[in-house]
This record gives sequence, structure tokens and C-alpha cells, in this order.
Amino acid sequence: MRIALLGGTGDIGQGLALRWAYDTSHEILIGSRTPEKARTKAEEYETELDSRGVETTINGFENAMAADRADVVVLAVPPYHVSDTVEEVADRLDDDTILVSPAVGMKGDEHGMHYHRPGAGSVTAVAAEAAPEGQPVVGAFHNLAADRLANLDVELDLDTLVVGNDGDAKETVQSLAEAIEGLRALDAGPIENAAEVESITPLVINIAKYNDGMHDVGVRFL
Amino acid sequence: MRIALLGGTGDIGQGLALRWAYDTSHEILIGSRTPEKARTKAEEYETELDSRGVETTINGFENAMAADRADVVVLAVPPYHVSDTVEEVADRLDDDTILVSPAVGMKGDEHGMHYHRPGAGSVTAVAAEAAPEGQPVVGAFHNLAADRLANLDVELDLDTLVVGNDGDAKETVQSLAEAIEGLRALDAGPIENAAEVESITPLVINIAKYNDGMHDVGVRFL
Repeated sequence: MRIALLGGTGDIGQGLALRWAYDTSHEILIGSRTPEKARTKAEEYETELDSRGVETTINGFENAMAADRADVVVLAVPPYHVSDTVEEVADRLDDDTILVSPAVGMKGDEHGMHYHRPGAGSVTAVAAEAAPEGQPVVGAFHNLAADRLANLDVELDLDTLVVGNDGDAKETVQSLAEAIEGLRALDAGPIENAAEVESITPLVINIAKYNDGMHDVGVRFL
Repeated sequence: MRIALLGGTGDIGQGLALRWAYDTSHEILIGSRTPEKARTKAEEYETELDSRGVETTINGFENAMAADRADVVVLAVPPYHVSDTVEEVADRLDDDTILVSPAVGMKGDEHGMHYHRPGAGSVTAVAAEAAPEGQPVVGAFHNLAADRLANLDVELDLDTLVVGNDGDAKETVQSLAEAIEGLRALDAGPIENAAEVESITPLVINIAKYNDGMHDVGVRFL
């Protein structure tokens, strides 16, 4: 399968790129608004993987080019760029290309981080509203501890939650998530339930802030 | 220490009463709006504990009487009764009696449960607004899997999150929580961070709904 990581030069994009390239045979494409940046990062990831004995090709493209080639497109961009990014790539998507939304809207103050719920109800819903009619949209990978994800020396042992209204697309994303070693994907229902999923991200940041020895906090449900 | 569980006849109240009575030497008082109900439940808990070789006295009272005698008052009532309950017991509290808020406002629809944020920002903030000036208020025990909590045969191995603006009160509640075997209490900051903590409760209900074999779901942060 071909997976495009738009915003694949950021921390969650980097982590997903490295983990998928390391643990699976899926082809990874890095997207960015500036193709040079995408190519530079893709080379960095290749070098990192090569140093661990994994020979793989990761290519970098401008976002629309990456989306054009992909079966699954991960919108690993800041929440306020999700809508624009979907519109930028919309006419390059096949009918069954799956859009994946991992972004979370947050606002910080002196106490900690707080969930900032968009008018659409969640960032995943923002992506769904911006997407072409009928395009499958899945929310996932919101609450991954980014530094742990990007560090291949660390075992994950974490859960991620998946929301979506297209059962097949959700299953595909769950399988992709579980192809990463130590990651379990749980179903949190349809996109209407995305706000509660996205709310975990500010919470784990607050837990890291207020508890000694905890940083880059992830979550397990049991 | 004396702990009053107002609404101690409900599921979270029952679980906390049984666990504290089983694992600690704290004195447990059950409060209810109807003292007969409180006494009946208290006897039930005593019988359950007695069957496990724990001889202890649990007394039942009308809420205000229970609060009057307690060092810590847990508001284990539905979210829409938190404000009334605090006002009902307010003039019975000592200056340093700690109010603990475990309630969460939720609304369900065909998709699942959703966090219903009160105007005050969180149910914990509702309790703090209703409390006498300077009364220590702590949010905790929101996301406990109620049936597991009440079943002494089950090992918990769960986290609970604690929020509060009075450091000493928060430490006391963290200690009380960690006196329950298998329960770890993490600091999630001040009451301003309570909404993100309370939001986990609808999420774990949704996870139980959408994943086979998961029910009464709890959480661990790691």
C-alpha cells in the first residue's frame, strides 16, 4: 500500500514514516508544501533506516503530488491547515483514497493545554467537511507520544483510537496502525465521537507537565 | 481519616466504599438523601466485607450528617445534583474538609456518549463554585471502571487523575486513591484542567461499545 504523509516533515509524520518503513513493506511518500523540504526529510529518514539495516526508498513530493500517488493520505499538518490541505489535494484523490486525520486543536494557558473544539465538532469532522462527497475520512493517531513514536529504539506498547463512518476505510486504518509493532488500534465509533478522542492529547500533555518522570505520555485502555 | 461518600449508594460510591474499607483502615460513612437507604446499603457493604474476612463498621446517614462527621466528602452524585448537594452540606463542613468531585456530565446519542461541558467549565468547577469560599475542592475518581471497582475479586491496575488548586488537599486525595491497591493517582493540574480529565469517561464508554470483549474500560498512562 502507498501511504502519503502530508506534513510528513513534522514530528508525528516523522514517527509514522519511520515506524511504517521499519515495521512494514508499505511504500511511504513524504508530502510538504515545499518539495525540497519533503525530499530532504525523506533522505534523512532513509539514512536513519539504513543505519538500522533497513534499505528502503522514501520519496518526497509537494503535497498534491504525494496525495495523487497514494492509497492512504495522512493529514499530519497543524489543525488550522487541515481544511486547506484537503482542498489543495482534493482533485488528486481517487474515490477510495482514505484521508486520515491525526490533528488536534488545542489552546494553552498558564495551567496547561485545553481541547479547542472546532465549530464542526472535531478536527476529524473538519477534514470530512472539506473532503469531496463520499471520500472516506478516518480519525486516528491523535494521541501518540511523538518522540517515542519517532525513536525506533523505544517499544511503543500504546493504544491509538480510530473513528470513522466508512467501515472498510476504518478497518484499513486499524490494520495499518496495528502493523506498527506495539501499537493497538481501538474503535471509538463514528466521526461524531471524535471530540472525546482528540481531547486526550491536551490531557496527556498536562499529565507530562504535572508528574515528575513522565514525559511524552501515551495511553492504554484496559 | 473519615470519608463520607454522598451518593454512596450508587456504583462509584459502592466501589470506593468497598475498596477503602477492604484496603485501608479509614472510616467510611455512606450518605444519601434518604437515611434508610444509606443504612441499608452500609449494611450490604458490611456483609460483603464480612464474607471476605474484613470486620468493619460502615454507617449510613442523611448526606448532611455524613458530611458533618467527615474529613473528606466525596460527591458521588449525578452531575446535576452536585451543586445542590454541596449547598445542602455546606454549613456542616469544617474549613479544611476536602470536597471531592468524581461526577461527569454526559449526553448520549445513537453514536455514543459525549462530554457535556457545564457553563462553569467542568463538574469539578461546578462543585468549587457551589462550595464555601476557600473550601478545598479536588476532582478525582472520574474514570474508574465502576463494576471493576466494586468487584473486590478484580485487580484494578488503573490510573485515576486528580485536579485541584489546593496542593495539600490534592496530596491527601492522591494518597487516599493510592491506598486502594492497584490504583495510581496522577496529577493533572489545577481545576482549570478538569474538562480534559472528565472527557475520558464518555470515551471509555464508547470504547466499550465499539470493541468486542472490552467492557468496563479503564485507563493507564505511560
